[in-house]
Amino acid sequence: MLSTEIDGTVDKASPVPYYFQLLQLLERAIASGMLTPGEKIPTEAALCERFDVSRTVVRQALSDLDRTGLVTRVKGKGTFVAEPRSAEFVVRSLTSLHEDMTARGERLETKVLRLEAEPASPHVAQMLELPESERIVLLERLRFLRGEPLVVTTAYMPYSLCAPLLQLDFSSRSLFGAYERELGYKLHRGTRAVESRPANAQVAEQLGVYEGDPVLVFTGITYIEDGRPIEYVVEFHRGDRSRFETELFRP
Amino acid sequence: MLSTEIDGTVDKASPVPYYFQLLQLLERAIASGMLTPGEKIPTEAALCERFDVSRTVVRQALSDLDRTGLVTRVKGKGTFVAEPRSAEFVVRSLTSLHEDMTARGERLETKVLRLEAEPASPHVAQMLELPESERIVLLERLRFLRGEPLVVTTAYMPYSLCAPLLQLDFSSRSLFGAYERELGYKLHRGTRAVESRPANAQVAEQLGVYEGDPVLVFTGITYIEDGRPIEYVVEFHRGDRSRFETELFRP
Repeated sequence: MLSTEIDGTVDKASPVPYYFQLLQLLERAIASGMLTPGEKIPTEAALCERFDVSRTVVRQALSDLDRTGLVTRVKGKGTFVAEPRSAEFVVRSLTSLHEDMTARGERLETKVLRLEAEPASPHVAQMLELPESERIVLLERLRFLRGEPLVVTTAYMPYSLCAPLLQLDFSSRSLFGAYERELGYKLHRGTRAVESRPANAQVAEQLGVYEGDPVLVFTGITYIEDGRPIEYVVEFHRGDRSRFETELFRP
Repeated sequence: MLSTEIDGTVDKASPVPYYFQLLQLLERAIASGMLTPGEKIPTEAALCERFDVSRTVVRQALSDLDRTGLVTRVKGKGTFVAEPRSAEFVVRSLTSLHEDMTARGERLETKVLRLEAEPASPHVAQMLELPESERIVLLERLRFLRGEPLVVTTAYMPYSLCAPLLQLDFSSRSLFGAYERELGYKLHRGTRAVESRPANAQVAEQLGVYEGDPVLVFTGITYIEDGRPIEYVVEFHRGDRSRFETELFRP
């Protein structure tokens, strides 16, 4: 992208601040597709020269663009037009990723990393309201959207409720579907919490990102109708791909 | 923390996998307060020696602890007992940070960084359903919990609805309170989206973290009763401090 290709000029006679005029030109270049997602924006020096404005003006414009998420600034590399999030989830009721994606006409591909019985650690036992060391079924899956890794999910389930799942192939099957159809449980409610954490080495490798890159971590417990927890889930979403939306009403 | 201080041994005669026994010992050391938040866990080598197990066993135990968020592994530095998130928000209805904290008996301190009128950029205009370049009121605040920076929030508000706010002191006042009490609007609903992004230089400095550290980004639009947007908000939360919880029901 040559800075000369961005349409327009900063009007020095206008009362509109220079940085704001530059911001408008850059936002229009992005909206019109002149600057495309992932494309590098001209350097500060190039923008100063092209628009005949100071470094301060350019920095304020780029900072405001960054704040609203239209560009991403990568330390030591420059400023890039932000990629749209490929996976937008609407979190309004208790649905699974599989169901969310299916409702949007997308399909998750799944690689099963682990499906095994093991004892519950003290933390997992607490989440599932089980005595410590009671057995659980652990299902870890790497899920792909449009061929790219999106999320690693680990589900910890009470063995007493879910042992038959050990026999199933989860590479082409929904876990919620298995709870309801194979096991006959009625799901009722779930808690979900979201945090941001740096990717550890293992998660980074699984998701194809660098160690330390931001991941969006969802943890939650899902309960069946009689109030028993059926799963404790931990999901690591690629920070640059996922976005969760909800709608709230004033009490 | 000396590894000799962790209670217990790995029982080589037990059928329980070694890594799992070690995981249990470490989780109990954390639960009992023997290992405290922020404390460094003994090195892999020290754990191997102390418990007479292989490096593979130690790595599996630490990896499982990390997965459930009980420890944090910092590249090149080691493994640390995770700090509890100081700010847990329950996202169930349209409430403000101020209201959430007040309900929990906590108080946010606020430093107003910017309060000014400016033209709406194309992106902000779109969010607020305003003609481009129409004026907005911009309020940027850095908010502290227990003396530590927690979140930087920027609210973009239509000037036509919110001009009187330019006269108010927001260092000790709720913005939601001002909408409702000073301006007389009735808030109705809001959309909220959450993403994870690396902190840029400016946000990193404001929040007291390193550039590139994960931040939890909330964006949203709040609407008043007649359906008009009254604010477009962008919030950057410290990734290591904030956690958002919600509860969902099966449709």
